[in-house]
Amino acid sequence: MAITQNLPVVDQSHFKAFEAISTPERLLLGPGPSNAHPAVLEALALPPVGHLDPVYIHLMGEVQELLRYAWQTDNRLTIPISGTGSAAMEATFANTVEPGDKVLVANKGYFGDRLSDMAERYRAEVSIIEKPWGEAFTLQEIEEALKNHRPSILAMVHAETSTGVCQPMEGIGELCHQYDCLLLLDTVTSLGGVPLFLDEWKVDLAYSCSQKGLSCPPGLGPFTMSPLAEKKLLQRSGKVPNWYLDLSLLNKYWGSDRVYHHTAPVNMNYGLREALRLLANEGLLNAWERHRINAEKLWNGLEKLGLVLHVEEDLRLPTLTTVRIPEGVDGKAFSLHLLNSYGIEIGGGLGLLAGKVWRIGLMGFNSTSENVEKILDIFESDLPKF
Amino acid sequence: MAITQNLPVVDQSHFKAFEAISTPERLLLGPGPSNAHPAVLEALALPPVGHLDPVYIHLMGEVQELLRYAWQTDNRLTIPISGTGSAAMEATFANTVEPGDKVLVANKGYFGDRLSDMAERYRAEVSIIEKPWGEAFTLQEIEEALKNHRPSILAMVHAETSTGVCQPMEGIGELCHQYDCLLLLDTVTSLGGVPLFLDEWKVDLAYSCSQKGLSCPPGLGPFTMSPLAEKKLLQRSGKVPNWYLDLSLLNKYWGSDRVYHHTAPVNMNYGLREALRLLANEGLLNAWERHRINAEKLWNGLEKLGLVLHVEEDLRLPTLTTVRIPEGVDGKAFSLHLLNSYGIEIGGGLGLLAGKVWRIGLMGFNSTSENVEKILDIFESDLPKF
Repeated sequence: MAITQNLPVVDQSHFKAFEAISTPERLLLGPGPSNAHPAVLEALALPPVGHLDPVYIHLMGEVQELLRYAWQTDNRLTIPISGTGSAAMEATFANTVEPGDKVLVANKGYFGDRLSDMAERYRAEVSIIEKPWGEAFTLQEIEEALKNHRPSILAMVHAETSTGVCQPMEGIGELCHQYDCLLLLDTVTSLGGVPLFLDEWKVDLAYSCSQKGLSCPPGLGPFTMSPLAEKKLLQRSGKVPNWYLDLSLLNKYWGSDRVYHHTAPVNMNYGLREALRLLANEGLLNAWERHRINAEKLWNGLEKLGLVLHVEEDLRLPTLTTVRIPEGVDGKAFSLHLLNSYGIEIGGGLGLLAGKVWRIGLMGFNSTSENVEKILDIFESDLPKF
Repeated sequence: MAITQNLPVVDQSHFKAFEAISTPERLLLGPGPSNAHPAVLEALALPPVGHLDPVYIHLMGEVQELLRYAWQTDNRLTIPISGTGSAAMEATFANTVEPGDKVLVANKGYFGDRLSDMAERYRAEVSIIEKPWGEAFTLQEIEEALKNHRPSILAMVHAETSTGVCQPMEGIGELCHQYDCLLLLDTVTSLGGVPLFLDEWKVDLAYSCSQKGLSCPPGLGPFTMSPLAEKKLLQRSGKVPNWYLDLSLLNKYWGSDRVYHHTAPVNMNYGLREALRLLANEGLLNAWERHRINAEKLWNGLEKLGLVLHVEEDLRLPTLTTVRIPEGVDGKAFSLHLLNSYGIEIGGGLGLLAGKVWRIGLMGFNSTSENVEKILDIFESDLPKF
């Protein structure tokens, strides 16, 4: 029996006979995504099982444990959010901010701006302290701001992807708790590549992404909340104003109840498990050391070529280096040349640094001595032509 | 130089030496995810390019065109949301509801409940009309409700995954526009498997998922909004209260500006493009016909075994069949037996139908005559033992 009998005519105007997908080889040395580890891509392509299959439920627990290790936290509520890092970022405010709550954002780059924007959408009363793009906050500046603003959440970025600055974290968590304030930390460009001790630093809310230090494609947003942050969630007077990111619901799926919430991105979690497993097998200290050594090699090489690094050495991120575009050079044209002639992606500046710096990432699988040599060689041979 | 000198000690308590991932073979004949097409899994494992790479930007346009074809819509704002179907579901309300807006939910199953819950979180004034789980609304019932409630959005589910009912859509869109109301439609279990004509039906907001009729793993949420819905977004008095799902920002990335919003899940979009390409190559009519023929074979076979289908034939979904668990049979034990003895997943009942029905899905790649025969054979041989 033909089902076509009573149907409208199918419109062919958007039908396109595309070829099967083919993508070029790229070496991704920009701000992310970084190249994925081949074993992670292999895991990604395994046939999916159901999101309530006992096999998958078991895997969820493994992912959680490996995330706790990578982040150095005991937090029970440590899960990958089913979206990218920005979704996990939003989950922090969505769950803990109630209308009128005071949020203080310590802003020193593009992602600080985003934190303010998000917090406001959850009807927080947002205050902002600022540092020039390329600097970090001192403990004294943080304390003064906590004293002045008395926020219930201090939000800041550990590794600013827009500036290449790594914020020193020692003592900030203690100050926050002293002033009855939760500490929210962006670790998007640090997880897996830069020393991170969430519990030691008394961080209450943190998020990251899959596509940088973890060598997995983008698509999952690691998220964690401390018992203190969980308490604030439990004491809410109303529902979380975001169903998809509501941790009180997600908790029932990821916790012992295993109650259906949404259909988990099964294959992305296969990939993330493999990525975290590889990191654990390498060992955190080894991974951090590797990132540091390769970054230093890059910094020395760039300076030898007469280029100026945007951030002073003490504050530099090993995962992402901002290098100033020399006077008279068309930075965008050079980036495009790298992409088109060598298949190498590096990043341009973002926000206030647009047109002023290139951003070179050495993250996860891509943080190798060979990659550093390759990019330095090309800078040496080709930059003078621009 | 050792970076370990001034660091806290790395805590090994969450370190686990897991083996590489290994997953069992599963035939997923539940409510979703369905098995992915092998070519889609292959695409998923291609090395990622950057989310602002010209190659990827081009691919985004292809995905949009193929989605428009699959949904039969000209809507400019047709994109995959970077989350699962539930994120795309939430994006509909997040963008178009302002506090105090009247939303009418035509509820006839579990996902109707979810629509109400979500709309309330965006501070809509929600009214609900209800039908028993297993039935559909008549045009007259819809008109009466529009007249009584005068909502600005009517939200309903085309293919109710919890009940197996396909809501007839002819005439509903005309009524909505006559009453100055947008029509919001859940097409999670219909896209790719059941006739869908969004523009012909005058649907203003719709969403779906990747893991059912499209034969891709879960992880992306197709979303579309009509020019009329876009107008409501543009006329908002305040920002969209959800940063991640804000279409006014996403529009700048997916539109001609290509302004960075979040890092797109590149590999999932590789998979989705391949899935949509396979659907286009088969042709919508052929795909719909295949789903219908295999579903009818399943229905006839189950009835021959003396089983009772929960939904009357005219309203039955070809993608998902609800079959009543016979008196005295432990439905959960039988499902578990299928999983453990044959690697076949079927679904149990959800919400009001928990313990009362099984849910058998024949979706996308899995809608084959062989799969129908396989599941019928096992029902015939093994169900009498339960």
